[in-house]
Amino acid sequence: MVFARVLERHASAIERRLEALLAGNEDAPAGLDAAMRYAALGGGKRIRPFLLIESARLFGVAEDRALDAACALECVHCYSLAHDDLPAMDDDDLRRGRPTLHIAFGEATAILAGDALLTLAFEILSSPASHEDADIRAELVFNLAKAAGWRGMALGQAIDLDAERQDLNADGVAGMQALKTGALFRFACEAGAILGRASASDREKMRAYATALGQAFQLADDLLDAQGDAKAVGKAVAKDEGRGKATLVALLGVEGAKARLAALVAEAENAVAPFGSKAATLIEAARFIAERRT
Amino acid sequence: MVFARVLERHASAIERRLEALLAGNEDAPAGLDAAMRYAALGGGKRIRPFLLIESARLFGVAEDRALDAACALECVHCYSLAHDDLPAMDDDDLRRGRPTLHIAFGEATAILAGDALLTLAFEILSSPASHEDADIRAELVFNLAKAAGWRGMALGQAIDLDAERQDLNADGVAGMQALKTGALFRFACEAGAILGRASASDREKMRAYATALGQAFQLADDLLDAQGDAKAVGKAVAKDEGRGKATLVALLGVEGAKARLAALVAEAENAVAPFGSKAATLIEAARFIAERRT
Repeated sequence: MVFARVLERHASAIERRLEALLAGNEDAPAGLDAAMRYAALGGGKRIRPFLLIESARLFGVAEDRALDAACALECVHCYSLAHDDLPAMDDDDLRRGRPTLHIAFGEATAILAGDALLTLAFEILSSPASHEDADIRAELVFNLAKAAGWRGMALGQAIDLDAERQDLNADGVAGMQALKTGALFRFACEAGAILGRASASDREKMRAYATALGQAFQLADDLLDAQGDAKAVGKAVAKDEGRGKATLVALLGVEGAKARLAALVAEAENAVAPFGSKAATLIEAARFIAERRT
Repeated sequence: MVFARVLERHASAIERRLEALLAGNEDAPAGLDAAMRYAALGGGKRIRPFLLIESARLFGVAEDRALDAACALECVHCYSLAHDDLPAMDDDDLRRGRPTLHIAFGEATAILAGDALLTLAFEILSSPASHEDADIRAELVFNLAKAAGWRGMALGQAIDLDAERQDLNADGVAGMQALKTGALFRFACEAGAILGRASASDREKMRAYATALGQAFQLADDLLDAQGDAKAVGKAVAKDEGRGKATLVALLGVEGAKARLAALVAEAENAVAPFGSKAATLIEAARFIAERRT
């Protein structure tokens, strides 16, 4: 599949840039740097930074001009995984086929390395080295902070933790996921528009695309959890059901979830249809996300 | 003492602004907002935001123009306390005379609320509402991220955790504290200079003042821990010795530490002496910090 190769090429570029951003630190004391590198390097599909780079390209921004913002976003994603995996949170031992960060480095270092990756994201975004226009730097920081924070991803995680104690209906689950997963997807696509100085209406199209895509991604993830094979997925499966966690697959059934997934992909496609053939990669991304098996 | 009242007046202004920045959220689900308010409101001397506001005033910036940056800094400080108190870190139950955040809200919410306060700091700093000049907003974000991150406060905490396993000498302890405590003090004073568009040499004076002040603050804290009364201090005392933690008081003795404290206060005073009488409040702050009993 051609698209899978496009994604891999992007993932390599992001890996190399993250390596550079996290480099020169191997002798640092106390394992903090090593833990940050472990959490951020060597794995992941890099979907979010891919979306940022491709959204920026839609508005005429070259890949190397979007790469640092893409890496900052990935740092936030990796921090969120490290903290979500902690014993006090989701208590996961396996991630991307490897021991989770706190298993490999201990809880204290896992908490600190997560904190430091989150902080590094803002250092990267605000650095004059990442973009020469301070207005764009400040706007990216503002939007990433809102997406990741108490009205975005962090709130979604809080609701998700709480959902293990109180039942959510399908709307409640979708609302939680729109924060927990959706907020960073929306940032990815809106950041591309910010870098490309897109119009307000084009920014809105990117938000609509990202909203549908984020939901599709989460639904595909839940379907993999319900049906998947731990070895292929690289983390424990069937854990949602095991801990009575609210998912749309549990609420809608596998067939209902698949129908909703198809509708979301169509919604994502429609959102970027006005951009014509320039949006082909983003449309392929939506289809790929819905069909992924790992 | 007049200075104590100046500090209290600032603390009230900071408390009111933090209340507003954290307001309107009491009905939010999952306790995240309540935990953030618990961690950020209702206590503390607010030394760091005080230093930011007074440093800005030195360069002609009105207090209300520095207040949001001061609150952002305090959010970072409060996040660091919440995470440092966690069972996997310093495992403290008492802070400012109240149960620590994870005792009051549980570990998962304490981790998340800390994450969210850190993120909120960057949202506040980058918001057009906090300052109209994007260059200044981006520079504040860049400097705060560096101060709080993997080459600043987070590294200091990593070294400190590690120091419970391996002995540090006096230089090692001072180096650790220059990161763990000093980095946010330096940001406080440098942020004032950034807001006031100060010259590079004036920025350097502020850094020198803050470096000495941060060391003095930490040394006074360690002396309180070694000699203080838990009720007056509002947190457990003698805990450093109990856990074999490296402090300068243990390494230099009480009298040696007091002599060093006096030298640091003189160093801080000398750093801002070129500003003449305009620096009177900052000089009083250095004396107050060295003499504090709680």
